[in-house]
Amino acid sequence: MKLMLMADLHLGKKVNEFSMLEDQAYLLDQVIGLIDEHRPDGLIIAGDVYDKSSPSAEAVRLLDVFIRRIKQRDICLFMIAGNHDSADRLSFGASIFSDSDIYIAEAFRRPIEPIEWQAGGVMAHIYLLPFIKPIQVRAVWPESDVSGYDEALKYVLGQIELAPNRFNLLVAHQFISGAKTFDSDDILIGGIDQVSAAHFESFDYTVLGHLHGPQTVGSEHIRYPGSPLKYSFSEAAHQKSIPLIEIDPDHRIETTLLGLKPLRDMRIIRGPFQLITDPKHYRAADQHDYVQITLTDELEVADAIARLRAIYPNLMKLSYDNKRTQGSDGYRVAEAIHHRSPLELFEDFYQSQNNHQPMSDEQKDYVEALLREMEEDR
Amino acid sequence: MKLMLMADLHLGKKVNEFSMLEDQAYLLDQVIGLIDEHRPDGLIIAGDVYDKSSPSAEAVRLLDVFIRRIKQRDICLFMIAGNHDSADRLSFGASIFSDSDIYIAEAFRRPIEPIEWQAGGVMAHIYLLPFIKPIQVRAVWPESDVSGYDEALKYVLGQIELAPNRFNLLVAHQFISGAKTFDSDDILIGGIDQVSAAHFESFDYTVLGHLHGPQTVGSEHIRYPGSPLKYSFSEAAHQKSIPLIEIDPDHRIETTLLGLKPLRDMRIIRGPFQLITDPKHYRAADQHDYVQITLTDELEVADAIARLRAIYPNLMKLSYDNKRTQGSDGYRVAEAIHHRSPLELFEDFYQSQNNHQPMSDEQKDYVEALLREMEEDR
Repeated sequence: MKLMLMADLHLGKKVNEFSMLEDQAYLLDQVIGLIDEHRPDGLIIAGDVYDKSSPSAEAVRLLDVFIRRIKQRDICLFMIAGNHDSADRLSFGASIFSDSDIYIAEAFRRPIEPIEWQAGGVMAHIYLLPFIKPIQVRAVWPESDVSGYDEALKYVLGQIELAPNRFNLLVAHQFISGAKTFDSDDILIGGIDQVSAAHFESFDYTVLGHLHGPQTVGSEHIRYPGSPLKYSFSEAAHQKSIPLIEIDPDHRIETTLLGLKPLRDMRIIRGPFQLITDPKHYRAADQHDYVQITLTDELEVADAIARLRAIYPNLMKLSYDNKRTQGSDGYRVAEAIHHRSPLELFEDFYQSQNNHQPMSDEQKDYVEALLREMEEDR
Repeated sequence: MKLMLMADLHLGKKVNEFSMLEDQAYLLDQVIGLIDEHRPDGLIIAGDVYDKSSPSAEAVRLLDVFIRRIKQRDICLFMIAGNHDSADRLSFGASIFSDSDIYIAEAFRRPIEPIEWQAGGVMAHIYLLPFIKPIQVRAVWPESDVSGYDEALKYVLGQIELAPNRFNLLVAHQFISGAKTFDSDDILIGGIDQVSAAHFESFDYTVLGHLHGPQTVGSEHIRYPGSPLKYSFSEAAHQKSIPLIEIDPDHRIETTLLGLKPLRDMRIIRGPFQLITDPKHYRAADQHDYVQITLTDELEVADAIARLRAIYPNLMKLSYDNKRTQGSDGYRVAEAIHHRSPLELFEDFYQSQNNHQPMSDEQKDYVEALLREMEEDR
């Protein structure tokens, strides 16, 4: 059984006001090429298919054409909704699609039943779990009284009785604690959305969506394929790929990472204006890439954006790194906030409003409980 | 061949801030009941399936469940997008659905090809034409240079070569001139969106969406089934129905109107407060209907809305008809605008801004051409 793994397509996404549609169409063409070359039995897309719960007509058309081409190739498609998707909208027609070997997870309203599927001498049970929040788990099992994402996931997966002689494969869209994150990942401040890798260990394989950096977590059998395109400059150094896994009848797994080449790369360029605008320098790489330029000149360069755009038409961000900008600590403050819990941030706010008087333990407990409740029910 | 005809479902619509979802679910249940009773070979939905181009998740779920139930009954579904729908969103997965006898018109990007379909000894060619604007026709046939809706429709339908031995059935979503309209119909001021019934006459049958009042136009074979629910008080007197047409092998057509009963009716109540709030009066009908109440009392009734809502929980509109309101001509002014052309309205505006000086003929011609262009390209 050969499976290609994908996640976090974010069809219709804009990055710094640039539409990614053309890049995404180019990428999906490439995926079709890889399918024709490697002839997998199935393709898995682990959520965040679209970038918005109400995707644009162009994004819908892009996916429609892609699914049509998948179907023409007679391979199975397994797809779930991520936190960016509306599970109800994405699963429209799912029961009719399934007649055509296209399986889209329904919105989470009942225990997860496996899809029994066989290919290459392997009998598999495929479990499709769309992105879930604790409140949805409590709606299905009111008696469970789960609190937080970790308990919720544990409960849902605990309801599954795995078949011992099947290859049990789970497709999910959650944030496993300990995984590497980047700017474009949607993670909740304070880490309340993190779940332990331990809950996934009883499955033979888990394909995850949510984090854009390709990685395995805890074990080689729990994998984020990552987004197929770079969606922030923090991902500039990534090599995006599609994992191809081959499972033999003894359930041994072999993994190959099929490299992806974007229409336009995303790059960080740093240096003095004169060097960056020197043809010897810029002609070495593709001028149509999406670039973030950091100028190290001490003096502001007149009309820099227009002059740089003449060379790099897809310039997305321009900043200076010099004595003046180093003197301001705006950047560092923003960084610091990112790594602090909501409770710590609230404490700061409380103190600044109350003559630096710290919160009492009772006050802290109250706020903590409140924050927890808010995050869970989002 | 037995066909049930519907149009203008407007799933997800709100009327005067009241969600119609529950009423629509009840109605679709009733349609399933009628299908089980009359066992048609197919169901046609002639556009405005949803009320918005980006429908709510609830509306999508409602249609998903309905289509699933249609499919379980092994009948064909033919559906097109109306002006309220996004053709791209509605036709997502259309090529895959068609394997399951569910035909959804693709967004209009090429000449219309028929679906060959056979049932009850009748060979039919079904043409699915989603709502189109002149600009879309010019995009497909740049040489056509059509101007206006009437020319556009004529051109598109003129490209179709009808098969002489087939039952040629067209499903479309346009406004035929001469048809009866009501408040909830979306018609363009000045009637620029109207097309002649003559263009449809070469088809054996035309099922239309767009106008909510059930009617035939020009001939018995050009029919608006009408919306299955009342969506404005101007439709209060309608009897909504689903036409069932039976076509025999000689292409003779027999029509039966299957009556629909809404969960809550839409009614207009008029009279003095004391009579309307008298149990003997209001117990004669369903208090849960959507009602518009016009009080004829000369004196304002204290706290009227709250007191009337205690009896009619779904009171949608309250107004007075007495000496005071008859004196103001606000209502009549609004009415008058509705029946005037954009050019007339612009002339008024021009005069009020230019010391009552009328526009010259040249000015009129210029504005008229401009308005025409704007409306066509909307």
